[in-house]
Amino acid sequence: MKRAIRVLGVDPGLRITGWGVIETEGPRRRWIAHGTISPAPALPLAVRLGEIALGLREVIVTYAPDEAAVEETFVNVNPRSTLLLGQARGAVLATLATAQVPVVEFAARKVKQSIVGAGSADKSQVAFMVKRLLPLAGEVKADAADALAIALCGAHHRPVSGVRA
Amino acid sequence: MKRAIRVLGVDPGLRITGWGVIETEGPRRRWIAHGTISPAPALPLAVRLGEIALGLREVIVTYAPDEAAVEETFVNVNPRSTLLLGQARGAVLATLATAQVPVVEFAARKVKQSIVGAGSADKSQVAFMVKRLLPLAGEVKADAADALAIALCGAHHRPVSGVRA
Repeated sequence: MKRAIRVLGVDPGLRITGWGVIETEGPRRRWIAHGTISPAPALPLAVRLGEIALGLREVIVTYAPDEAAVEETFVNVNPRSTLLLGQARGAVLATLATAQVPVVEFAARKVKQSIVGAGSADKSQVAFMVKRLLPLAGEVKADAADALAIALCGAHHRPVSGVRA
Repeated sequence: MKRAIRVLGVDPGLRITGWGVIETEGPRRRWIAHGTISPAPALPLAVRLGEIALGLREVIVTYAPDEAAVEETFVNVNPRSTLLLGQARGAVLATLATAQVPVVEFAARKVKQSIVGAGSADKSQVAFMVKRLLPLAGEVKADAADALAIALCGAHHRPVSGVRA
């Protein structure tokens, strides 16, 4: 008997890393859990990145996702922001890979396209559709809504073509 | 009886991550080990970052460093390079923090200053001084030499003021 596949969506950020877990079985999607990881900004960089990694590891252990989906980073106009985001992203991707969770990356446009039907959709449209597609999720804040949208996109574009670590 | 302190220096990079371990006891420095982690470039990004994290974890388990020193990243003129380096750096810092190794960061200028005596020293001067200060290391390639230089800088600027994860 084939069980439903669990997809973990992650929206990496040094200040707030959003995550969301859904189950997918054929055309059906079911909300499992979502949340955010927010290390105290006053902590040293390495400690903040360590908290993101540990928080995500806890999510992986708790919800045992079969696959993960992460948004591709666009290169920011501000190089400092790009560097900070890159570091958060590196912590997230390394944690997924060392936990043997296969990762697929999606461009932000593709995430919006697959949820709202338009690559140029804004955050509120994405949040609205996440709520409609996953009614059990209830009220979801922006960062976790983005993560659930990424998970939905990952579910939509299965099977995973990434290579296992 | 106080034992010598082990300092792990890391020079993060997606293509090549250099590492070097030294022991420090008062003014004395002793080479312990060095090496590089080079994930195959053809692998997906997450898998490469996972290999960097696993490789570094193995170094930590094998050599049990008390502290780590990592070079601060300068923001590159090329945003794409900045993003790639940031991701490698995030994987490295998160791995050190989750392994409870306290991290200190140093500007490249400071590393050169403390090894060669000049912040504008070039790579060959740094490698030359690493060889002089750590004769047991033998022939060391550039990336590992940089990591040993960072470890020497970390040893020079102890005690660590960073916060433990």
